[in-house]
Amino acid sequence: MIIIGELINTSREEVEPAVKERDVEFIQNLAQEQEKAGADFIDVNCGTLIREEAEAMEWLVETVQEVVEVPLCIDSPDPEVIRVGLETHQGKALVNSITAEEERYQETLPLLQEYDAEVVALVMDDGGMPKDAEDRIRVAAQLIEDLTADGIDIDDIYVDPIIQPIGTDEKMGIQILNAIQEIVTEYPGVHITCGLSNISHGLPERPLLNQAFMLLAMSRGMDSAILDPLDERIMALATAADTLLANDQYCANYIKAAKSGHLDV
Amino acid sequence: MIIIGELINTSREEVEPAVKERDVEFIQNLAQEQEKAGADFIDVNCGTLIREEAEAMEWLVETVQEVVEVPLCIDSPDPEVIRVGLETHQGKALVNSITAEEERYQETLPLLQEYDAEVVALVMDDGGMPKDAEDRIRVAAQLIEDLTADGIDIDDIYVDPIIQPIGTDEKMGIQILNAIQEIVTEYPGVHITCGLSNISHGLPERPLLNQAFMLLAMSRGMDSAILDPLDERIMALATAADTLLANDQYCANYIKAAKSGHLDV
Repeated sequence: MIIIGELINTSREEVEPAVKERDVEFIQNLAQEQEKAGADFIDVNCGTLIREEAEAMEWLVETVQEVVEVPLCIDSPDPEVIRVGLETHQGKALVNSITAEEERYQETLPLLQEYDAEVVALVMDDGGMPKDAEDRIRVAAQLIEDLTADGIDIDDIYVDPIIQPIGTDEKMGIQILNAIQEIVTEYPGVHITCGLSNISHGLPERPLLNQAFMLLAMSRGMDSAILDPLDERIMALATAADTLLANDQYCANYIKAAKSGHLDV
Repeated sequence: MIIIGELINTSREEVEPAVKERDVEFIQNLAQEQEKAGADFIDVNCGTLIREEAEAMEWLVETVQEVVEVPLCIDSPDPEVIRVGLETHQGKALVNSITAEEERYQETLPLLQEYDAEVVALVMDDGGMPKDAEDRIRVAAQLIEDLTADGIDIDDIYVDPIIQPIGTDEKMGIQILNAIQEIVTEYPGVHITCGLSNISHGLPERPLLNQAFMLLAMSRGMDSAILDPLDERIMALATAADTLLANDQYCANYIKAAKSGHLDV
């Protein structure tokens, strides 16, 4: 699993003031903890800081990269903010996100090309959010076809099928699972990622649903998730599932994780 | 999920003496606890009691049925023991198991017909244990075709794809998952069950692997498992996964389980 650590996001109560006050220690700690816990990317999102988002993004990228080895995920819907993040970032970054909306696609694509970035491709277009498996498959296909035609490697594309709450549509989970399987079957080599926690919105015991949904989706071909890597239980389940899905030669990673006590949760 | 409670099995250290000594209270408690925890069938297996297995089976079926409402799973490779169990059992039982081995098939089939029993169909034949996904699919197809031709409803068949340890073959998990999906796609209405714990044999933190594998398999179409229903975590994950897989209208069962505290594990 490719883990995108989600904790540096100003929509989280304790993070917004830390970013506003340029609290280097707080942000660097949060970045280092996530890297240590196994994050492959550190997401940085300061979207709540209206009018100062670009400036805050520049500071975040610099501040986080001072202390971690893993690349960052530059997370903003605004191509101008993404540009600032990519200009500042050292090495190959992940951009979160592009969509099939005409204007956003046209403004974001050149940034990916210029900075050789990977990209999260959200399955929405000018028709809005996807309603069912078919919408997801159709928009994912369009994004993959367009991005690869525009010079982006398929291995640099992370399709996000957009998780919506099961509490308002009980068929949402199965629709998303079917879409994931169809997309990875049709386009081998593409990655699938998602923000898991939306699935459980409005229901009790949300971590349990998030954990279960991650495993159901991994079984269908999802190979990445945007999540809290400090949640030891979801990380342990991801490690176990990777081993069960033959992504762990000789079960070596699993045995190592068990020895270090990371699976005893 | 159709849960087959596995705890009444004389291969378990505390159960063998209880069965030998005809300890009614111990066995009835173990049965009631499993039913209360959500078991849909109570498995009874006294296979370690050589030469007295039939007699012990008769006692087990009588003793357990005195205190539970759910049907039993008569668990023995020996058709004579199965006959005694079925003769004693009130209502429709589940037989564990038939195979595609010629002699065992011919001896077990008439019992299913005579007692209108459901059956676990293990994917092995006279060639031995299955080696890969193809073996599993081929033997499952033969068993389903033969059993339905011989008058058994497809809804009464629980295919067991035979779980083998991932520790000795790292591709075992993915082979079994692919086999499950192929079988349920080819034969709609058939059930899939398995004894989960074999997958983790020889590895550390076995419950974690068993939990993860159950969810991976549910995502591919497994709708039953032979497990310890007193393990609250695996039961909570099964409840969550059923809801995510659209087997729980309005998420009502999930919300009820959460309110009763069963998901807070």
